[in-house]
Amino acid sequence: MKNSFKPNLYLALTHYPVINKNGETIASAVTNLDLHDISRAVKTYGVKRFYVITPLEDQKELVKKIIAHWTHGAGAEYNAFRKEALDLIYIEDSLESVYDHIHVAGNGRPKTVMTSSRCFSRSVNYKDFKDMLKDGEPYLLVFGTAWGLSDTLLASADYILKPIQGNTGYNHLSVRSAVAVILDRLLGN
Amino acid sequence: MKNSFKPNLYLALTHYPVINKNGETIASAVTNLDLHDISRAVKTYGVKRFYVITPLEDQKELVKKIIAHWTHGAGAEYNAFRKEALDLIYIEDSLESVYDHIHVAGNGRPKTVMTSSRCFSRSVNYKDFKDMLKDGEPYLLVFGTAWGLSDTLLASADYILKPIQGNTGYNHLSVRSAVAVILDRLLGN
Repeated sequence: MKNSFKPNLYLALTHYPVINKNGETIASAVTNLDLHDISRAVKTYGVKRFYVITPLEDQKELVKKIIAHWTHGAGAEYNAFRKEALDLIYIEDSLESVYDHIHVAGNGRPKTVMTSSRCFSRSVNYKDFKDMLKDGEPYLLVFGTAWGLSDTLLASADYILKPIQGNTGYNHLSVRSAVAVILDRLLGN
Repeated sequence: MKNSFKPNLYLALTHYPVINKNGETIASAVTNLDLHDISRAVKTYGVKRFYVITPLEDQKELVKKIIAHWTHGAGAEYNAFRKEALDLIYIEDSLESVYDHIHVAGNGRPKTVMTSSRCFSRSVNYKDFKDMLKDGEPYLLVFGTAWGLSDTLLASADYILKPIQGNTGYNHLSVRSAVAVILDRLLGN
């Protein structure tokens, strides 16, 4: 049975500012399979757009090249399902420009819900965010690459979502897996 | 709060026999990130072992090389969390040899629960499988690569799990995402 709820939800994958293993702020490189896996998850769960955030020109070009291969190149004919998913990707310089892009499209300024593998005193749980989504207001769900979103970025979030807990103390899912699990918890049947 | 339930669950990723886009039975190539993402999900959710099934010698060598880099090579020092996850990988020729491997270790012959993006009249839902796991008997959860497990293989399954439904009619998650979502539905908190 198909759930017909259409969330006013956007998703962003951030490559800057994120932290590296030593806690330093860096710009990470784009991973090809992040684009594929996350756009397919975004399409599956009815998220409106998938923003890839990087200020680096060469990385933007790489993202455009990958998308073009599957949306206009040989890949589009080979596998139309990938095109449908990758069509949801937008490339932006920063979170600020994502807000503006959503705002300009007439959807209002979204509240940010950031993700982290750490738990904060103000972290909200999945049920709370699920209820928030029902109000129809726009929300932007933000994921980090490398070792996660920087503390400054997290401090600017309207909300921080609780980390995913499995069945053990191990807490190191890939961002691709984390996106799929979180969207399923929020929007899956 | 950590869930302390330890499932008697194994996971297999099959590269043969799977089908290609045209429905023909093939042996698919191993994807590097399948090993990383799925082993990390397996570790997160307390699955006992992650079997990578391929009868192709060059593919087995590739898997061994990737694992060795992260468990003994420079990668092990760089990122110990990856080692912990990749340590759960075992390489086998076929599902039959996976059964034997689990059996010989004194865990009994597991019941197979296969996954598919299609729904069958006998497909079981997540709640049913969750309940089955509580009986403590061994279960092997089987995923396909490429366009999925062959019909012959699916016909041999003790159980087939219902496909993941998102929020739309789009039904094309990557196997990496599907593994994460299914383990979370069965074992997540």
